[in-house]
Amino acid sequence: MTQASETRLAKFLQVAESLKPKLRTRLDKPVGVVEVEQCLQASMGWKARVVSDDSVSKTLVGKEQVIFDFGGHRTGHLSFDIEAIKHGIEPADAPCRLKIVFGEILNDVCESFENYSAWISPSWLPDEIINVDDFPSRVHIPRRHAFRYVKFCVMSTSSRYGIRIKDPVATALTSAPWQDPAPLSFEHFQGDLTADQKTMLRKIDQVSITTLRDCMQTVFEDGPRRDRRLWIGDLRLQALCAYDAFQDFDLAKRCLYLFAGLPFNDQGLLCACVYEKPVPLAGGNSLVDYSMLYAVTLLDYVKASGDMETGRDLFDTAARQFRFYASNFDEELRYDLKSEGVDGLRLVHFVDWQPKLIKDNAEHAIMIYCLKAILELSQLLQVNPPRFDIGGKIDQPLESIIESLVHAHRMHYYHAQRGVFVSGIERQISWAGNAWAVLAGVPETVEQSQEALRVAYEDPESIVGMTPYLHHYLCDAFIEAGLQDLALRHILKYWGSMIEAGAETFFEAWNPDEPRSSPYGDLHANSFCHAWSCTPSLLLRRLGCA
Amino acid sequence: MTQASETRLAKFLQVAESLKPKLRTRLDKPVGVVEVEQCLQASMGWKARVVSDDSVSKTLVGKEQVIFDFGGHRTGHLSFDIEAIKHGIEPADAPCRLKIVFGEILNDVCESFENYSAWISPSWLPDEIINVDDFPSRVHIPRRHAFRYVKFCVMSTSSRYGIRIKDPVATALTSAPWQDPAPLSFEHFQGDLTADQKTMLRKIDQVSITTLRDCMQTVFEDGPRRDRRLWIGDLRLQALCAYDAFQDFDLAKRCLYLFAGLPFNDQGLLCACVYEKPVPLAGGNSLVDYSMLYAVTLLDYVKASGDMETGRDLFDTAARQFRFYASNFDEELRYDLKSEGVDGLRLVHFVDWQPKLIKDNAEHAIMIYCLKAILELSQLLQVNPPRFDIGGKIDQPLESIIESLVHAHRMHYYHAQRGVFVSGIERQISWAGNAWAVLAGVPETVEQSQEALRVAYEDPESIVGMTPYLHHYLCDAFIEAGLQDLALRHILKYWGSMIEAGAETFFEAWNPDEPRSSPYGDLHANSFCHAWSCTPSLLLRRLGCA
Repeated sequence: MTQASETRLAKFLQVAESLKPKLRTRLDKPVGVVEVEQCLQASMGWKARVVSDDSVSKTLVGKEQVIFDFGGHRTGHLSFDIEAIKHGIEPADAPCRLKIVFGEILNDVCESFENYSAWISPSWLPDEIINVDDFPSRVHIPRRHAFRYVKFCVMSTSSRYGIRIKDPVATALTSAPWQDPAPLSFEHFQGDLTADQKTMLRKIDQVSITTLRDCMQTVFEDGPRRDRRLWIGDLRLQALCAYDAFQDFDLAKRCLYLFAGLPFNDQGLLCACVYEKPVPLAGGNSLVDYSMLYAVTLLDYVKASGDMETGRDLFDTAARQFRFYASNFDEELRYDLKSEGVDGLRLVHFVDWQPKLIKDNAEHAIMIYCLKAILELSQLLQVNPPRFDIGGKIDQPLESIIESLVHAHRMHYYHAQRGVFVSGIERQISWAGNAWAVLAGVPETVEQSQEALRVAYEDPESIVGMTPYLHHYLCDAFIEAGLQDLALRHILKYWGSMIEAGAETFFEAWNPDEPRSSPYGDLHANSFCHAWSCTPSLLLRRLGCA
Repeated sequence: MTQASETRLAKFLQVAESLKPKLRTRLDKPVGVVEVEQCLQASMGWKARVVSDDSVSKTLVGKEQVIFDFGGHRTGHLSFDIEAIKHGIEPADAPCRLKIVFGEILNDVCESFENYSAWISPSWLPDEIINVDDFPSRVHIPRRHAFRYVKFCVMSTSSRYGIRIKDPVATALTSAPWQDPAPLSFEHFQGDLTADQKTMLRKIDQVSITTLRDCMQTVFEDGPRRDRRLWIGDLRLQALCAYDAFQDFDLAKRCLYLFAGLPFNDQGLLCACVYEKPVPLAGGNSLVDYSMLYAVTLLDYVKASGDMETGRDLFDTAARQFRFYASNFDEELRYDLKSEGVDGLRLVHFVDWQPKLIKDNAEHAIMIYCLKAILELSQLLQVNPPRFDIGGKIDQPLESIIESLVHAHRMHYYHAQRGVFVSGIERQISWAGNAWAVLAGVPETVEQSQEALRVAYEDPESIVGMTPYLHHYLCDAFIEAGLQDLALRHILKYWGSMIEAGAETFFEAWNPDEPRSSPYGDLHANSFCHAWSCTPSLLLRRLGCA
C-alpha cells in the first residue's frame, strides 16, 4: 500500500473515531420473579408466569434458581445485591458460586446449554459463573449482555446458608434516543385494517424500534448478543431505520468511515464486517453483495443527511467495489457465481442463509441495483461516474454497463412463460431472485414486476427466505412494485408470528413453521435481537401507516 | 446485653479497626511453564518439569491448557495478558471462555475437581471461569487466591483463533515484612546434626516463615485458601511465631480485640473464630479449649510486647471463660466431656481432628494450662485473679483451684504402672493427653514428664496427632520436658516429610503415611498453607538452632 493510501485510511479512521457516540443509559428494574413451564401452545415451547412483583428472590439453597423478568429486551449491564441467609447462627462460611444466565427469550433461561451443538463457538452462550466471597455484596457484572430475563442458579453455597438476590438493576445502553417515534396512526392509510391488525402492527412497530435501539451502540451492531459486529448488509438496513426513527445520521457516517478505513485488501475491496474493539480491525472476509451494497448505504446516507462532503470523501471507496466483480460477467454478461475475483480470491455471495438458494440471478440484480446507486451518487455529488472493463470490453461508461446488465438479466433469467425470474440450470424460482430483480428495475413493466413477485411468493416450489434480511427485501420489492397489500400481509404474517412467539425484539433467524431452526445448528446460538430484522417500522411508514 | 457492655464491645472493635494493617505487595513473575506427569515416587503423586522459562504460553486451542509455576507460594492476585492468535486472516471472532485453576500444590492443577467429595462446600475449590471479549486484554482477577501454580484451560475460543497467555504477574500480599529472619546458624546448637539435616532444617525454617507470612493478612488467617478466618487456636501459634520472626505485635493485638469485641453470647463466652469481612462478625461456634486458650494468647502477647494496658483491657475477657466450664468438673474434679455448659450449650472440644481421640485428660490439662496463664497474667498486670465455683464449692481462689485440678488430673488420668497419662474408661494412651499434661505441669518430676511422653510417642497403640496443631504441642511438650532430641527428631520427621512431598508452605492436615488424607473427605478441600503448621521456625529457635 502506498504512503498516500495509508494516510487516507488513517484519516478515515480518525473521522470514525471523532464520531464515536457517548452511550445513553437507563436504569431498569425487573417486573418481578417468574416461574416457567413447558407449554405446547407456545411456539417456542415455554410460558412464564409472574409469581411475585418483588425485586427479591426467595432464599435459594442447593441447586435452586430464580428468574427475574425485566419486562422487555435491553442491551446493557446487570448489577444486584446478594445476601446470605444463614440457617443457624453461623454466618456465611464459604463463598457462593453462582451461574447467571441472560435470556433474550424464555428458551435461554428454560433450557440447558449442555448439549449445545452449533458450529459456532459456545463461548457466545449467554451465561457466566461468578464467585462471591463476602455478604452482603453489590455485584456488578462487567460484561455487557442482551437480555429480558436473568436466571440466577446456585452452584454451591455451604450447608450453613442460602442466598437471596435483591434489587437487580439493568443499566440499559444505546446511542439512540430512549424516546420512541410517534406510534403508528393509520390516519392516512389507504385500505382496511381490523382493530386486531392495527394492534399487531403497532406492536410490530414498537418491537422494530426496540430491536434497532438495542443494536445501536458505538456502531450499528448486527446483534448485541452475538456477534456484536458491524456488517455492511445489516448497516444498510439499520441506518435507513435510524434516519427514519431517530433522525440519527452520525452513527451511519461513523460506520461508513470505519469500513472505508479498514479495507479487506490493498486494492480497497471492502470487508463484509469490521471489528470495533479493542481497536478497529478489518474483518476476515468479504461478501460480494455486501461490498457492493456499500454504495447504496452511502447513497441512502447522502440523501437522508444532505452531507455531500462525506459522499464525495467516500465515493471512490463505494465506486471501486465493482472493479473486483466486473470480470465475473462472461461475454454474454451472465454472472458467474463460481468465477474467481481479483487475486484469486474465492468469492462469497450472501443474499440469504437459505442453503437451497441458487444465487446467480439475485447477485446479478444486486450488481445492477448497486451500480444504479453509484450512478445516482455521481450525479448527486457532481463527480464523474466510474468506468469499468466488462464482458471483454474495456473502459465502458457506467450508464451503458447498467443498460447492458439489465438487458442481460432479462435475457438470462426471465422465464416469460411463467412470468417469473429463475436461476440456475434448474430454473429455480425464489423470493431472492425476484425481489432483487424488481428492486434492480429489471422488469419492463410494473405488471411484470407484480407478476414475478406473485409467482415467486405463491409458487409452492419457490425457495423462500430464511433470514429476516431477505424478508425485508421481499417487502421492499412488493412496495416498489405497488403491491402494498402483499407487503402489509407479509409483515403481519412474518414479523407478526415472531410477536406471537413472544418476541420483544426481532430475531436473527425465524421460520414460523420451524421455530427452533437455526443457521448454526442450535437455537441457542441464534441472536434474538438482530439488526436485519428491525425494518418493519420503516416499511410500515412507507406503507402509509404513520 | 447492657448498654455498658455494648459500649465496651464497640470500643474493642474500634481498637481492632484502628490496628488494621496496610498490606505490603510484591510483584512476582513465574519461573516458567511446566509440564506435569504422574510419578509413583512422589508422595503426592505428581512431578513437574520446567519446559520453558518464558512468561508466555504456546498458542492454545481447543481444550488445551498451560501451567505457569511461580516458584513458590503466595497469597495474592493474578493478572495476565491474553492475546488472540488468529489462524487465518479473521481476527478473534468470538469471546474466549477460560478456566483458571490456582494451585497451592501440584495436585490442584493436575487433578480434576469433578468428583469432589468433601463435606465442605465445593465453592472453596480454587478455580474460576472467565470470559474475555476483546483481544489483546490485560486481565485482572479480582478475587484473592493462594497459589504457586496457575493453570489456564481453554474452555472455548472459536475455530478462527487460539489464545496465548503472556506475562502473568502475581501481586503477593501480606502484612508481614518480605524480609525473612536470619537463617538458622546452628552455631550454638548443642548436639550433632549432619549437613543434610541442617539443610533440611533450614528449609523447614524457611517454609515455616512463608506459611506464617502468607497467612498474615489484615488478620491472622488460618489459611489464605480456606477458610481465611481468624481462629483462637491458630492465632495463639501464629502470634507467637510473628513475635519471634517479625517482631510484629500489632496484628496479634488487633486479633485479640476482635475476639473480645465479638463474643459468642451476652455473657462474654468467646467464639472459636470470627469473620473479618465484609464487617467483623462473630462466628457461629465456640470451642472449649479455644476460648480457654485466649488467656494464654493474651499472656504471650503481654510478655512479648510489654503492653500492660492491653493486658488489663482484655483481662476480664480472658479470665471469665472458665466461668462457662468450671461446672464441667464433677465433685471429684474429673472433667466431664459430656456435661452441658451454661445455657444448655453443647460443648465442643477440639484438641485435634483425630476422630479416635478420647479428650478428657487433654481438656482437663488444657484447663490447668490456661488457668495458670490467667494467674500469671493477674500477677503481671497486678490485678486480682478471678475466683470460681468448682467441684460443688463456691468462690474458690484461683491458686487453690489450679492446685486441686493438678492433683485431680494425676489421680484420674495417671497410669503409674505404665508411667503415662490415659483417658477414658479404655485408658487410652495418646499424644494429646500426655503433651497437654506435661505442658500443664501435671507430672510431679521431669522424669515423669519424660517417661509419659516417651511412652505416648513410642507405644504402637498410642493415638497420634492428626493436625500439625497437635504435632506442635507435642514438640512443645518435648522441649518443656527437656527432650530436645525428640523434638528435633520429630520436626525433621514430620515437617521434613511435608518438605519431601514438595511443600512450599506447610499443610493444614498431613499424615506422611496417607498423603491424600483429609479431615473433609477430599484432598482438594485441604488448605496447603495453614497457620497452625507454621511453628517449626519458633520451635527450632527454642532448640538453640538460631
